[in-house]
Amino acid sequence: MPDHIVKAFDADLQEIAQMIAQFGGLAEKEVADATDALKRRDTELAKRVLANDEALDLLRRDIEEKIVLTITRRQPMASDLREVVGALRVVNDLERIGDLAKNIGKRVESVSGDLIPNRLMRRVERMAGLVLVQLRKVLDAYAGRDLAMALDVWRADEEIDNFYTSLFRELLTYMMEDPRNITFCLHLIFCAKNIERMGDHATNIAETIYFMIEGRPLTGQRPKADMTTAPSPIKV
Amino acid sequence: MPDHIVKAFDADLQEIAQMIAQFGGLAEKEVADATDALKRRDTELAKRVLANDEALDLLRRDIEEKIVLTITRRQPMASDLREVVGALRVVNDLERIGDLAKNIGKRVESVSGDLIPNRLMRRVERMAGLVLVQLRKVLDAYAGRDLAMALDVWRADEEIDNFYTSLFRELLTYMMEDPRNITFCLHLIFCAKNIERMGDHATNIAETIYFMIEGRPLTGQRPKADMTTAPSPIKV
Repeated sequence: MPDHIVKAFDADLQEIAQMIAQFGGLAEKEVADATDALKRRDTELAKRVLANDEALDLLRRDIEEKIVLTITRRQPMASDLREVVGALRVVNDLERIGDLAKNIGKRVESVSGDLIPNRLMRRVERMAGLVLVQLRKVLDAYAGRDLAMALDVWRADEEIDNFYTSLFRELLTYMMEDPRNITFCLHLIFCAKNIERMGDHATNIAETIYFMIEGRPLTGQRPKADMTTAPSPIKV
Repeated sequence: MPDHIVKAFDADLQEIAQMIAQFGGLAEKEVADATDALKRRDTELAKRVLANDEALDLLRRDIEEKIVLTITRRQPMASDLREVVGALRVVNDLERIGDLAKNIGKRVESVSGDLIPNRLMRRVERMAGLVLVQLRKVLDAYAGRDLAMALDVWRADEEIDNFYTSLFRELLTYMMEDPRNITFCLHLIFCAKNIERMGDHATNIAETIYFMIEGRPLTGQRPKADMTTAPSPIKV
């Protein structure tokens, strides 16, 4: 690329990075607020989570437009092309995380009249806390192009999967014990499943970071909950 | 664009359209096979559904690459740009439909030992049938740039939502009646939820078709199950 095009492309990339950081911050807030609304059965906060999803949607379209315009104008190749394709993928995963937070928000009203054991609610909260750490970490790894940190996120998803499995079993036990527990436990199972899937999307972002830096997909089986005995789960 | 570029761009678009048609056919087959595997508790077929998801993943990457290369080389503007951006979105939704089918496939083994009432299984099957019709229709609408057909799909999602709500309640009743029903009912609720979300993605594709043809997003509230009384749900 000629020098002025290189500079213009760098400016575009920087703008995209800023937009994605903003988008990531909003997605993070949606997750935190949705969990908080669920924990405190706060239907007003839940409504704000649903309303904010529209802002996320608009920002996503803006970022996608910016990315496509950048491709159109700068015709990037090789690693530059990976940068913009990677950005498209990251936006996609962040949007799905926002959607999953919205789904939790939708359930708040349904459980607002239920007496949910504190123990269960704390477990859901703890799981969401783990995912939020993953999300923050992977956004930092993306901003700083930090491969080691991205791989950390990729590996740590196993912990969330394990947490989900154990919480699922606990909720199942509550349902078996008393039919009156069934409805709220079902909602909590869906919430826990949503949180577990947020973890998967954080992992996808880690894979995208790897692809952007290394120029090839991160292959090999990701360590899943039922594969903990595999001696070396990461083959990169 | 100069004439030879226009022709090259048209050839690119045609190739992308063919790839998406192929991808759509594979996604459709995944949905049909996953439902069939669930119905017959056929764990071998379920395994094939999981294995085929990798082929879908690879094809998706190929299509994305082709689209990005097309943008890079042809620098499309206006409606041409909407064509390629629309293609990106459609691929994304089809991939998610494939993922949801895979999730159903994963549950087949878990319910393979359960005596599930035929009545329930037929209801799940019927719901999947409705979604398959939607999926086929929206793929036809995409291939033929058929706005009226796309809007048909967009409107008909309400029927699937209603079906899901009623099936959910029925499964809940089974769970309340006998704790031994809880586990398989939970799996069926997840399967039904997956099918309902496939319907949402078919609707997204309909919205993308609208955007490609009309050059603006399809706004206005989509008719949802709880909004059946709205006199004119589509404001375009």
